[in-house]
Amino acid sequence: MNFKELNLPNRTTKPREKGVTMIIDSGYGVRTIKDYLESGHNYADYVKLGWGTSVVTLNLEEKISLYKEYGLDVCLGGTLFEVAYIQNKFSDFIKFSKDIGIDMIEVSDGTIEIEQKEKLECIEEVAKHMKVISEYGSKDSSTVRAPHYWVTGMKKELQAGSWKVIAEGRESGTSGLYRQTEELRTGLVEEISDSIPIDDILWEAPKKGQQVWFIKKFGNQVNLGNIALKDIVPLETLRLGLRGDTLLKYHQNKSS
Amino acid sequence: MNFKELNLPNRTTKPREKGVTMIIDSGYGVRTIKDYLESGHNYADYVKLGWGTSVVTLNLEEKISLYKEYGLDVCLGGTLFEVAYIQNKFSDFIKFSKDIGIDMIEVSDGTIEIEQKEKLECIEEVAKHMKVISEYGSKDSSTVRAPHYWVTGMKKELQAGSWKVIAEGRESGTSGLYRQTEELRTGLVEEISDSIPIDDILWEAPKKGQQVWFIKKFGNQVNLGNIALKDIVPLETLRLGLRGDTLLKYHQNKSS
Amino acid sequence: MNFKELNLPNRTTKPREKGVTMIIDSGYGVRTIKDYLESGHNYADYVKLGWGTSVVTLNLEEKISLYKEYGLDVCLGGTLFEVAYIQNKFSDFIKFSKDIGIDMIEVSDGTIEIEQKEKLECIEEVAKHMKVISEYGSKDSSTVRAPHYWVTGMKKELQAGSWKVIAEGRESGTSGLYRQTEELRTGLVEEISDSIPIDDILWEAPKKGQQVWFIKKFGNQVNLGNIALKDIVPLETLRLGLRGDTLLKYHQNKSS
Repeated sequence: MNFKELNLPNRTTKPREKGVTMIIDSGYGVRTIKDYLESGHNYADYVKLGWGTSVVTLNLEEKISLYKEYGLDVCLGGTLFEVAYIQNKFSDFIKFSKDIGIDMIEVSDGTIEIEQKEKLECIEEVAKHMKVISEYGSKDSSTVRAPHYWVTGMKKELQAGSWKVIAEGRESGTSGLYRQTEELRTGLVEEISDSIPIDDILWEAPKKGQQVWFIKKFGNQVNLGNIALKDIVPLETLRLGLRGDTLLKYHQNKSS
Repeated sequence: MNFKELNLPNRTTKPREKGVTMIIDSGYGVRTIKDYLESGHNYADYVKLGWGTSVVTLNLEEKISLYKEYGLDVCLGGTLFEVAYIQNKFSDFIKFSKDIGIDMIEVSDGTIEIEQKEKLECIEEVAKHMKVISEYGSKDSSTVRAPHYWVTGMKKELQAGSWKVIAEGRESGTSGLYRQTEELRTGLVEEISDSIPIDDILWEAPKKGQQVWFIKKFGNQVNLGNIALKDIVPLETLRLGLRGDTLLKYHQNKSS
Repeated sequence: MNFKELNLPNRTTKPREKGVTMIIDSGYGVRTIKDYLESGHNYADYVKLGWGTSVVTLNLEEKISLYKEYGLDVCLGGTLFEVAYIQNKFSDFIKFSKDIGIDMIEVSDGTIEIEQKEKLECIEEVAKHMKVISEYGSKDSSTVRAPHYWVTGMKKELQAGSWKVIAEGRESGTSGLYRQTEELRTGLVEEISDSIPIDDILWEAPKKGQQVWFIKKFGNQVNLGNIALKDIVPLETLRLGLRGDTLLKYHQNKSS
């Protein structure tokens, strides 16, 4: 049942190359996952098992199967890559990922320091085994890199084999792209989007205000990430102009 | 099992005309809904399917049945009315609502502009088909209307057939009744409550501090809305003086 | 399945005397509880049924059984003790607690005023029937007691039979140990931890930043409370250095 008479803006369908929504799993249980995917699996493309949560989740295999059943790819969080890398266990990490049925690995340097050359080699190495996505930007809210580093770094990571490149925002939306106040570094966003094809970038935007900003700026097919499970349906309403925040962008006012 | 020896303040029971709690469904799944209604269905009167979430919810019918099973009326969010209205599809919208088993429709102008006369006509039209509730106030946090507009508008909407009139607060508690800081416009509240019977008003109060304020001001039978599912039980404890914030209002201190 | 090759810092196992994680149940339903305990029951030691939620929860017995099934002790919130005490129903309260299968009672004076001598007598009385834990500190964010009161009071409560003593932080992390801004009163924490064995204190730390601070200060075996169900797995990752915030404390940087 649907309100078929309603005119809605276009949306891509799965498998998507643009208009991608990436979910962050911060430790959800299986009933919660079923709940939100029954209501909105069509609107979510892949899930990142946040940071090292996969290591302590007691029923990890059940969780991974469930996401796949609903058509979402499963990706390991970049922080787990970083812990493995720092412990010289990168090969073990790739093996572990394959063994448990992971579809994608995120390569990041949000917390540890990795030479750019080595990060690019890691991206290339993962690409031999599965889909790889890289993340650019620091998780430390006091670290503010100039835009040209972002642009150069992101371009190289795409060349090294990243499916898309993620612009860091954390689960909290308070570092990387954002100031500690959750305010967006809009100049940084413009520098990035002027130099890199918009479909190759995935913006981490966990808060509603941030999602609204990106949709108003780049349209409803912008790639967004670090979306909470509970926000799958709300985000889709923003993409379709079905919430106050984007209504007037997609539906004309009678009186105007 | 209950702590029967405890003295608690009076509460109305369902169906309630005062002490109403309205839930906002921002895209919940069915297990979550079951969870919170098993624990607290007695304390929740009706649910609003927030803004346009009903249009993108893949298992909408199952959700609607579930709420009814637990004795909650189901209402469509005002923003969906506004999208339908702006697209000249008001009759289709009423038909859609009836077809899927909706009990109530919310008529609002939080985002779009509607002439007062037309809004009142919409209220009258819905009233021919089902229960209608109207909402007063803008979702735009920079729009601040003087109290006398609220009072006059709300009175007319009640006369046109609204069951009660909702004072806008959004899901976030940052517009309409509230400043962007979530602070309440207390002067506005007093102007409204001095002119309109308190039982005819339903205050949107999503945040705990806001709920506490209304209960302290108007007593535990105040009508409150935009309550998250997870807050059904916590809100009921506030109404009964079972949480620190309202304890001393309802239970006398031994030492005093 | 686990990433067994990874080196992780030590953690105690259940039943724990240190490294305790106390969950606060703010009105959860049973499926949500199952969800989070299936994924992380090993990391949670006991649950507090927050304030008076147990009185209004319609399926309380089912909830209590479920927690016990997963190996968590169940404790009644201190505010319920305070309501019972103020109504001169302390004995009824203990009887009610035993009847419904409660394992622990929290004795607090966060909202009402109790003479110290009487609070200590209540602790002694509960100890005759079951495990008792006391809480020190006011829920009123404008009440700021000097550190030496905390130290003296906490010591006496431990002597009276408290298993551990809880340092108040509320569910919101905005009173007791914290300023209204969620900022920690670090001087207060140091006064307490210099005078009382760290394993005897349980710090309420609902927000991630607060948890990170305590783990960085006292190590990963610090006792933490008022943890939301959804934060069981995330907190465990912080204790193990599997999240950016504590990664470098537990895992050495290659380049350093």
